[in-house]
Amino acid sequence: MALSEVEQLLAVEEIRRVKYAYLRCLDQKTFDLLEDVFTEDATASYSGGKYHHEGRDGIIAWLKDKMGSEGMLSSHRCSHPEIELVSDTEATGVWALHDVVAETTFGVLISGAAFYEDRYVKVDGRWRISETGYKRSFELMQPLDAAHVTASWWATDGQSSIDA
Amino acid sequence: MALSEVEQLLAVEEIRRVKYAYLRCLDQKTFDLLEDVFTEDATASYSGGKYHHEGRDGIIAWLKDKMGSEGMLSSHRCSHPEIELVSDTEATGVWALHDVVAETTFGVLISGAAFYEDRYVKVDGRWRISETGYKRSFELMQPLDAAHVTASWWATDGQSSIDA
Amino acid sequence: MALSEVEQLLAVEEIRRVKYAYLRCLDQKTFDLLEDVFTEDATASYSGGKYHHEGRDGIIAWLKDKMGSEGMLSSHRCSHPEIELVSDTEATGVWALHDVVAETTFGVLISGAAFYEDRYVKVDGRWRISETGYKRSFELMQPLDAAHVTASWWATDGQSSIDA
Repeated sequence: MALSEVEQLLAVEEIRRVKYAYLRCLDQKTFDLLEDVFTEDATASYSGGKYHHEGRDGIIAWLKDKMGSEGMLSSHRCSHPEIELVSDTEATGVWALHDVVAETTFGVLISGAAFYEDRYVKVDGRWRISETGYKRSFELMQPLDAAHVTASWWATDGQSSIDA
Repeated sequence: MALSEVEQLLAVEEIRRVKYAYLRCLDQKTFDLLEDVFTEDATASYSGGKYHHEGRDGIIAWLKDKMGSEGMLSSHRCSHPEIELVSDTEATGVWALHDVVAETTFGVLISGAAFYEDRYVKVDGRWRISETGYKRSFELMQPLDAAHVTASWWATDGQSSIDA
Repeated sequence: MALSEVEQLLAVEEIRRVKYAYLRCLDQKTFDLLEDVFTEDATASYSGGKYHHEGRDGIIAWLKDKMGSEGMLSSHRCSHPEIELVSDTEATGVWALHDVVAETTFGVLISGAAFYEDRYVKVDGRWRISETGYKRSFELMQPLDAAHVTASWWATDGQSSIDA
């Protein structure tokens, strides 16, 4: 590796930032911004390989289809980044995911945990995700039932409707 | 920007630390420690602007009033820091919040997700929050019902009462 | 402290990585890998001191006994690292924990929040945990009831069984 220690620290910080942008786009439903996040030939393998996609366009189309509805309220939170630089322009990453999804259209609450395994490549001076995928530790599904949605980015402009 | 790359990395780390101190004070109810976290003229705009406050003293007084009760058990977790240095002494930050609040007095469980947008200023050699606010992705309220509180920082000195 | 600013940044990053490895081993049930994480004389004091252990072997044996069952599905997520280097080879750390545990054998869901206080020591060129422990902000226990387990690292190889 030709990178100095400072350059390595900066690279790890940039890679974390790409992941945060990816996750923000999912939960804010700004899927078009994902073009800057993936390499053109990126692959994704979600839910232990159940959902496999080749190519950035296919991944984004699938995410949009799967999570585009404003009735699907999601929180995808990744922590515990274990980023390894493989070369000056390649890296791997392991992340711990915890996600909560209120599917208000179907009246179910899905939550769970998983570990992501990613690969990153620096293309045109920018780190991007070239491979991503997660395997679930567990997933739980329950009726939304007695849970009321009291705020939504889309339906209430992000304001709570609970009276303080 | 006159900051070297190392100084920029250190600044980002210090800014993250200020946010972590802020969040720790909320959940441990040590509101008086928040004086070091905010600038004197700080503003806060919580819940998509529903709750707006001007000035550090007003923010702290409101947080204390709103979250001071030991019957209100909270977990505010911020991840995905996207910190941008604007100058040597100014920065912006976007964070993903996931929060869970057990309001034992009223028998409700409130949980949700949001994105924080902050501004930070370095005053007297220390980074502080000058503007903070979040907009919710969603919020859910449900009865605490069958959920028992089995530990509390205050009521059980942080020990679980579940028999192992 | 003889460490340069860059070395301090690298040390903090390594210490965070040790914590992430510890948490990954818990949730993936790869307890034997914890040998590299703790010092030989490490101590642990979980749940506000309710569970106290002296020595790496004792800690690992207890974790294995307590969390080894594949019917116990866990997500332990630590964020908000406040790491302080005390010397070139010693550090302290405060972390915010949020954990969710589905005890499918007993039909209960346990979730909660806590603050970890750790000590780290650099031994043989590697940072390790020498003291760890947390005090709960709160803990909730409720019946799993209507919640179905739809994925498990062990039972479904990490794939969701929800039809998309």
